[in-house]
Amino acid sequence: MRTTVGWQAEGPSTTLRRAPLKRRDLRPDDLAVRVDYCGVCHSDLHALHARDGARRHPLVPGHEFTGTVTETGPEVTRFTVGDRVAVGSIVDSCGECAMCRAGQENFCHSFPTLTYDGVDRHDGSTTLGAYAREYVLRDRFACRLPEGLDPAAAAPLLCAGITVWEPLRALGVGPGSRVAVVGLGGLGHLAVKMAVALGADTSAVSRSPDKAGDARRLGADGFITSTDPEQMAEARDRFDVVIDTVSVPHDLGPYLRLVALDGTLSHLGHLGPVTVQTTDLLVGRKKLSSAGSGGRPATTAMLDFCAEHGLTADIELLPSARVNEALDRLRHNDVRYRFVLDMSDLD
Amino acid sequence: MRTTVGWQAEGPSTTLRRAPLKRRDLRPDDLAVRVDYCGVCHSDLHALHARDGARRHPLVPGHEFTGTVTETGPEVTRFTVGDRVAVGSIVDSCGECAMCRAGQENFCHSFPTLTYDGVDRHDGSTTLGAYAREYVLRDRFACRLPEGLDPAAAAPLLCAGITVWEPLRALGVGPGSRVAVVGLGGLGHLAVKMAVALGADTSAVSRSPDKAGDARRLGADGFITSTDPEQMAEARDRFDVVIDTVSVPHDLGPYLRLVALDGTLSHLGHLGPVTVQTTDLLVGRKKLSSAGSGGRPATTAMLDFCAEHGLTADIELLPSARVNEALDRLRHNDVRYRFVLDMSDLD
Repeated sequence: MRTTVGWQAEGPSTTLRRAPLKRRDLRPDDLAVRVDYCGVCHSDLHALHARDGARRHPLVPGHEFTGTVTETGPEVTRFTVGDRVAVGSIVDSCGECAMCRAGQENFCHSFPTLTYDGVDRHDGSTTLGAYAREYVLRDRFACRLPEGLDPAAAAPLLCAGITVWEPLRALGVGPGSRVAVVGLGGLGHLAVKMAVALGADTSAVSRSPDKAGDARRLGADGFITSTDPEQMAEARDRFDVVIDTVSVPHDLGPYLRLVALDGTLSHLGHLGPVTVQTTDLLVGRKKLSSAGSGGRPATTAMLDFCAEHGLTADIELLPSARVNEALDRLRHNDVRYRFVLDMSDLD
Repeated sequence: MRTTVGWQAEGPSTTLRRAPLKRRDLRPDDLAVRVDYCGVCHSDLHALHARDGARRHPLVPGHEFTGTVTETGPEVTRFTVGDRVAVGSIVDSCGECAMCRAGQENFCHSFPTLTYDGVDRHDGSTTLGAYAREYVLRDRFACRLPEGLDPAAAAPLLCAGITVWEPLRALGVGPGSRVAVVGLGGLGHLAVKMAVALGADTSAVSRSPDKAGDARRLGADGFITSTDPEQMAEARDRFDVVIDTVSVPHDLGPYLRLVALDGTLSHLGHLGPVTVQTTDLLVGRKKLSSAGSGGRPATTAMLDFCAEHGLTADIELLPSARVNEALDRLRHNDVRYRFVLDMSDLD
């Protein structure tokens, strides 16, 4: 086994502590990657807090990172040592089901292997994430990081970015589309930037009117204060696509009412059961959808698009030793818009 | 006021009795129509039973009918006496909102005037339906019944037919589409016929395997028994469009699992709150939608399409005096596939 160091929670603790970690010896198609930058995702917070006291394995979060290849298995041909790579929330899948064959490994019928807290398909071990100095993964689940993308600000593209990119593209967003993005957090701010870069007429929807300036800085054409009934009524049936990034359970009715005839609301923010009134779908034949993460072809396409448009996340970069502070502030929505950890302090 | 005769429920009764009815004197843009045939819709049953004891106005159901123009108001230019017309569940709308301007009067922002149990926009009276020998309505909400369509078997096109037609068209069903229709009742059997006529590869989904023969007779290419887990598993992710016509609340999960990547389930059968698991939408970016009734342009297009393809409902025609028997049998799903009342016995 290889050894590295990372930030780990053990037992019931929700505090991450620096700890030595083991990585597997390289399989023929594996890469070893020095993790340079890793984004801090809401899922990390969720994983830390969801299972207080019931954790069976140590937890190392982190599933949106950029880094540098340090070693390759003998069958690896796409990468060589020194290449810059980007990795998201999936590091393996069955490769054989209809979804994998369609390049949607995120929907793999036998469930994709998650970057952390997943189960390795070969040795059954629990995967440990990228809040660490090294990560080992199958070469085909690493993307080349395009030239010109800042590796720190690009890290959040690999989870937050692809999660909003896939529905935007699948729903045909382009010039002439009218897009609303609900919630201006890690996902929402990237959804605004991407929709704008795709040529859509883009509005941000937020509870707080004081986000209007931020929305404009991100490129939004419009801003709707969701707590203002008049503004919400005026915006009725206006948007072909509504991307709802609010990460806690909430009533989707008010946002469905913003959707235009035959349009779609894709909500990305949380898992679990969702209840809607049939009339909110029926009147206007509106569609409710969801999305999460992305397949390999879409991830590559997104990175190329972002490189072409100079599009990255707005980040606050912290040394990885401040990870607990970052998580605590994220919990209180105190970040514009994504924390990224600089892993070089682990050397 | 004009007088006619029809089938009416009063007070708490759920039994329809023959009664004299009043119709308004013709406004300048009104038609008087002799009702020849009226379909018996699940909504009629619902209206009769939903408000036992709490009914404030007498109820005359009936909102899918064909008939003959007997008189026209002075401003009517599209119709003359003797024309055969078809009328559905909407007889007026505001005409000014975005939905009306888009030809989707069924989604009128100030609510369309329903053919029965609606409120007339001019005099505030409660509309009485087409289980009657005469109906009076604004000319623009009557459609010309195309030559060659049997007026009895065409009547159900005006509610059941348009309700499945609009989502099929809006979801782009055509040659190459893979369509599944859940439930083989009044709506379902027309959905199968229409999807087949549109060129789609069409399967019927039903709880009872003994409907397989019926499905084939309707033109379906495939049949899935929804109570057979193996058949349902095999059909996973297979259909671009699933039209769910089951008219009682039910778990949509099993039917969402039949939807292909980026496909849509449109459920038509019931109103009220619907709960789905986010993962059933997320995995495959599936969409949940609904639809109901139709706008004037789509209704005209549907009737033309049906005339071109010789497509009508499979009906059981009864004299209107047997309306209570028809409703009772419909309640027990004992009809293949739609009752139509012959109103000539009211003369």
